[in-house]
Parts: sequence; structure tokens; C-alpha cells
Amino acid sequence: MKKTVAVIMYEGFQTQDAMGPIEVLGDLVDLVEIRCVSLKGGLLKTYQGVPVMTEPMDQVPNPDIVVIPGGRATFEVMNDPEFIGKVRSYVESAEYCLTVCTGSLIVAAAGLLDGRPATTNKSVYEMVTPNFPKVEWKRKARWVKSGKFYTSSGVTAGIDMAFDFVKDIFGEEAAQASSYEMEYQIMSDPDNDPFFDCPQLQL
Amino acid sequence: MKKTVAVIMYEGFQTQDAMGPIEVLGDLVDLVEIRCVSLKGGLLKTYQGVPVMTEPMDQVPNPDIVVIPGGRATFEVMNDPEFIGKVRSYVESAEYCLTVCTGSLIVAAAGLLDGRPATTNKSVYEMVTPNFPKVEWKRKARWVKSGKFYTSSGVTAGIDMAFDFVKDIFGEEAAQASSYEMEYQIMSDPDNDPFFDCPQLQL
Repeated sequence: MKKTVAVIMYEGFQTQDAMGPIEVLGDLVDLVEIRCVSLKGGLLKTYQGVPVMTEPMDQVPNPDIVVIPGGRATFEVMNDPEFIGKVRSYVESAEYCLTVCTGSLIVAAAGLLDGRPATTNKSVYEMVTPNFPKVEWKRKARWVKSGKFYTSSGVTAGIDMAFDFVKDIFGEEAAQASSYEMEYQIMSDPDNDPFFDCPQLQL
Repeated sequence: MKKTVAVIMYEGFQTQDAMGPIEVLGDLVDLVEIRCVSLKGGLLKTYQGVPVMTEPMDQVPNPDIVVIPGGRATFEVMNDPEFIGKVRSYVESAEYCLTVCTGSLIVAAAGLLDGRPATTNKSVYEMVTPNFPKVEWKRKARWVKSGKFYTSSGVTAGIDMAFDFVKDIFGEEAAQASSYEMEYQIMSDPDNDPFFDCPQLQL
């Protein structure tokens, strides 16, 4: 039985946030099936302008693994109660939930990171983290594991987090094979965060 | 006037090959417009299963910059004379052509890399390069610049190549700003190739 990975998309999400984990997980074609979903389904565009066709979340019930990308558009969708409600039930029933960049704010808005350590994009860290004071935000972390949650820092940190997840779930060998094919030098230390004190974006 | 970046897609292309450069270039929203194209247009799926909607190449004439991803499916499309003919006219009229992974084989099949240095994915290097003996293949290279052509090694090497391209065309500052937001440590030495002697895939 393949694991179903539902990647929750929304208009304007950051392309690489989703595509990094999709590349790493989806490369395991015998173990994993990628499903691109959104609240209502249909065609939507990433922030960089890639049109992706999505299935309605209702048509992909109870995925094993949920992946949530971030981006500027996060700040809109995290205030949509219907979307957040759907994400909550999706994540609660899943085995694992992986967020990239400001994707962690969506899970935080659903109340699911309260009392847990987590991280997010460092170039908006000072602006966004005070909105969710019950989350134990870690500034210096490339990614953070807490129970079934893997939260990563900005954009490409999602690749490193996804490799760590593959190691945990499918083993070291699967990760190694993908890293050769992707010609990617895996960063295996989640606390090695070169960007924790980077300049803050004014949005 | 924004630069038009046409990303040539085909059924089964490697997700990250296209999405890496799209992330880096498309982040420059005031300077660049991303267009996802394919020979006939319409919906197609990446190797990892992402459904992307594409425009027919004929409807996006004379793009400024052409990006060509690779993947296992390259070995099919590089033998399709209609596709290769269309790629040839597209690339000939463009200012720049960037290839990722085995995407360079598509340009090689169009005869456009003859007599030029170029590179490709290292885990299939021994299998694929003898098919195009007129290309001056470089095994140890993360990416190679030759005239208007930028060819990169496998998958994530396309991110490094795209940052180098952004530096060349839009300046160091634009690259630096994107690298903070993407939390990506730019590799700026094209000859630093940790994967040049990696194990060869049997396909």
C-alpha cells in the first residue's frame, strides 16, 4: 500500500515550498502517491505563476501524510475559517504533517501547534511569530520535529526536512538514492540554520 | 518590459528540474513572467505526479528565456522530430537557454550544443553522453555557461545555475534578496561538483 501524500495548495502559494518535498517524496514512486489538493479543487497559480490542477480536499479523504507550503498568500488563507477547519480535520487524521516556510502558520492557526516547538521562514520571523504565542517558536532551526509534525524554515529548508522525513519513515538508503539522483547534498543537522538572523522583509 | 521565461514541459518531466529555476526567476515578479508551455498545450503530469496546465508553444512565440527540464521522459521526447524542431526554433530566437539535468540532451538532439561545452545529470552521464559526441561534455561541473546556453547538472544544480543566471542578467543584489527569502546558500563555483563520480543509474 502506497502512502498518500496530500499537498494542500491555495492561490499564490510559494512554488518551491510545495515542489521541494514533492520532488523528494514523489521520487519514491513505489512507496508514495502525490495528490495535489485545495479547498474547492480546480486550477490555481503559484506565486511564481505555475498553473496547477488540484483535487478538492473532500475527494482525497484521510491522507497518510499532509504537506503544507507557505508564501505571502498564507496571510490570507490563515484567516479563512472554512479553510482552517478543513486543514484541522485533515491534519488530525493524518499520520504526519510537514510544513514549509510560513505553512506552519496555517497549522498554528488551526491550534495544532500549541505547546509544541516549531519553526517558520526567518525573513518574516519577527512579524509572524507573535501572532501565535502558544507555539514554542524556535528561531535557530532549519527544521523542527515534534510528534507527527515536521515544520521547516523558509522554502529550500523544505528539501532538507523532506530528506530527514524520508530517512525516518523509509530509511537511510531511500534518502541516499534520491540525493544522488537530485545531486543534492543533504543537510542532516536541523539546528544548522544559516539564516536565523537574516534581514527581516517588510511586507 | 518583463522578460518572458518559457519553461518547456512534457509528460513525465522531473518536477524540481523545472520548479527550481521557476522559483528563483519567478520570484523577480517585476522583471520576469513565467509561462509554462508544451508542444500541444494542455494538462500534463510531472514524474512525481503534479498536474500542470500548459500553453501550446505556438501561443507563446519568441520567449526571451527558455528553460528545459529533464527526467526519465527526456529519452522519449528527444526522439520526437516535431518536438525537437519546435524546441530548435524556440531556442534559436531566444536570448538565453537554460537546461537542467537531462534537459541538455533535448538541446543536444536539436544540434544546438555541437562544439560547445555542456553538462548533464551525473548519475546517467556514462549512458547518455556518447549519444551526442559533438558536444564537449564536462563531467565535473555543477553547471556550464557557453554563449547563450546555461546547462546544469542534475535536478537541484538547476537552482545554483538559476542564481548564477540571475546575477549575470539582473545583478548580485537581486540574487542575494532571493537567496534570503528562499533560505538558500548559493553555490557560486560552477566547478564545485560533488556528484561527478556518483554511482551510475541502471534505467
